[in-house]
Amino acid sequence: MIGFIRYSPLIGHHPQPILCQCAIELPVNVRFLIDGSEETGSELIPELLRELRKDFLVGVDFVAISDNYWLNMDTPCLTYGLRGVIYFYVYVDGSSRVLHSGTHGGAVQNPLVDLEALMCSLVSTNGTILVPGAYSCVRRPTEAELRNFETLDFDPATYAKQIGTDALYSNDKVELLRRRWLLPAVEFHGIEKSFDRIGAPTLIPKSVMGKFSLRIVPDQNPYLMSERFKCYLHQMHYRRCSGNRLRVKSFIDGRAFLADHTCVNYRAAYKALEEVWKKKPDLTRDGATIAMACTLEETTNRDVVLIPMGECQDFQHEARERMSVRNYINGIKVFVSYLCNLSAAIIEDSEDEDMRQEDRDRWRKRFW
Amino acid sequence: MIGFIRYSPLIGHHPQPILCQCAIELPVNVRFLIDGSEETGSELIPELLRELRKDFLVGVDFVAISDNYWLNMDTPCLTYGLRGVIYFYVYVDGSSRVLHSGTHGGAVQNPLVDLEALMCSLVSTNGTILVPGAYSCVRRPTEAELRNFETLDFDPATYAKQIGTDALYSNDKVELLRRRWLLPAVEFHGIEKSFDRIGAPTLIPKSVMGKFSLRIVPDQNPYLMSERFKCYLHQMHYRRCSGNRLRVKSFIDGRAFLADHTCVNYRAAYKALEEVWKKKPDLTRDGATIAMACTLEETTNRDVVLIPMGECQDFQHEARERMSVRNYINGIKVFVSYLCNLSAAIIEDSEDEDMRQEDRDRWRKRFW
Repeated sequence: MIGFIRYSPLIGHHPQPILCQCAIELPVNVRFLIDGSEETGSELIPELLRELRKDFLVGVDFVAISDNYWLNMDTPCLTYGLRGVIYFYVYVDGSSRVLHSGTHGGAVQNPLVDLEALMCSLVSTNGTILVPGAYSCVRRPTEAELRNFETLDFDPATYAKQIGTDALYSNDKVELLRRRWLLPAVEFHGIEKSFDRIGAPTLIPKSVMGKFSLRIVPDQNPYLMSERFKCYLHQMHYRRCSGNRLRVKSFIDGRAFLADHTCVNYRAAYKALEEVWKKKPDLTRDGATIAMACTLEETTNRDVVLIPMGECQDFQHEARERMSVRNYINGIKVFVSYLCNLSAAIIEDSEDEDMRQEDRDRWRKRFW
Repeated sequence: MIGFIRYSPLIGHHPQPILCQCAIELPVNVRFLIDGSEETGSELIPELLRELRKDFLVGVDFVAISDNYWLNMDTPCLTYGLRGVIYFYVYVDGSSRVLHSGTHGGAVQNPLVDLEALMCSLVSTNGTILVPGAYSCVRRPTEAELRNFETLDFDPATYAKQIGTDALYSNDKVELLRRRWLLPAVEFHGIEKSFDRIGAPTLIPKSVMGKFSLRIVPDQNPYLMSERFKCYLHQMHYRRCSGNRLRVKSFIDGRAFLADHTCVNYRAAYKALEEVWKKKPDLTRDGATIAMACTLEETTNRDVVLIPMGECQDFQHEARERMSVRNYINGIKVFVSYLCNLSAAIIEDSEDEDMRQEDRDRWRKRFW
């Protein structure tokens, strides 16, 4: 068994201290990977894990990750899917120096408007990605999956209130979850090198850089998607007949992940959540990316379960990141119960399970 | 006579020390206004000057401003027109907190893309302003004016090299000058409050602010233009059906200016430039704005001449702002000669000139 625990430099919002605090003998052997450096793109960790295949990872039967979050504030979740992410830097280089907008305004193509036009050309007003092929290979959800979405403890109005916005693309529960989990999305983060400090300068920037990310879903190929976006941006820039120069860089920070939530690993975690929280957990996917999920699956070739501990209002990645005491205590209990359930499952392991394991091997390998 | 001299906190690029350095007795009385605070929108200076009408400005016959720049590196200029400027802040407010783009990406309308779309909607790919009425009241150039443009010491290829760009809207000399001097222009300066620091955050900004300016030309009304732009931006935002909130603020930082370059004041300055530089100066306009030009014209009701001293490569408003020694020395000579020429002109002042002065009064008053 290997457990990946995300280390937070803020309030410890993931159950690091579980095994130090439970006074019973562990029913299974556990190997820990603490801090997959998710926030900095998990650089070099895949290489390290591939090295560790020879010793540290030998004999691992199950993998558990505790990193993501519940869909709400009250119902525990078990997560079986994640989106991947590609990050883009779009540079538009104009004149060799900043220009006075009075003296030169109207005569020179402004790199900032070129960049803005490029970024706008990526999405329509309803959030649809306009890049040809952006939706190719998107796996269609099964009827059962959409039916499950309908049963989840999620309400668009409450969600809008939680994040404080009037600007949801849809007020329909299933549609909103589909947009967050099953469809690719382009999001804009910022523009560097324009006159972004407080004040009203009248200068034309000489060079600007825009940052956006693309979340991809199963079964999209990140390398193919990255090339499609670059090609499209160059085409759009060419159509504008601008003399400014365009450069696009992309960074593949994680592939999409999808697990079979009927496997032993998930069944053990499901039972543990049910026991501790005294209610059926939601089976969810997550729109975010945890690069380690795919990496651990690939390097161990074992089922990876995602057991989130934090509530949806834990303000992840924000300055006021937090974890409730309730979830912290129950998180410890869930993990103890989960390890006991796994131990029982290993004993009961049947020939039937071996056969199904082969099926899942094939399933997993499609994402590597 | 009143002389307005722009004070530069960097290298003194305007001839402050003229009258301290010439060893002759001045042929006319001179009153100085040193530093019109042009860089900070000349705030409160118009009010001060209106106050000073009672005493300080009484008996002023001519006004000279030395603030702007030559069109090139070799031929002195006399400038008879300026554009005005309106500065806009466009705020798009989204959610009450920044959002994780993985968790929420695709579900929520991103304020940054709303802002980018709004800014793009202002100009076409060839720089034409798309706001209805943006070109209304633009004064048509006379045949004589365009013919004069053809004779000016200006070459688009040299200009492109000077500012270091391949992105001119036109390579035609007259068209380029028309765009810089006679037509309104929208220029984009920056975007505040997005994730503009170095790095690749995957957050959706909660609120962003875009900055752009509009240069207006004679006979455009700044209040009307400002309202037209605000109205258009709100309309465009409404069409996007975005739940994000839009606020637009505008600041009128200066009206357009146009002088009659056949008047005594201009004739005296022209002669002075010709004497010192041993060549006929160019009669130019300038795309930039000097709010003080209109204010001094209004408060004195006298002809205002613009006598630029710096070369076009003096990098105005940049960190490496400079002035050549040649232009500094000759600038002193030009101003001494100009004052002597004015003194002679006052003596020769004819009845004919009085009549023409009335015409010019009417001309000037159209811009106030």
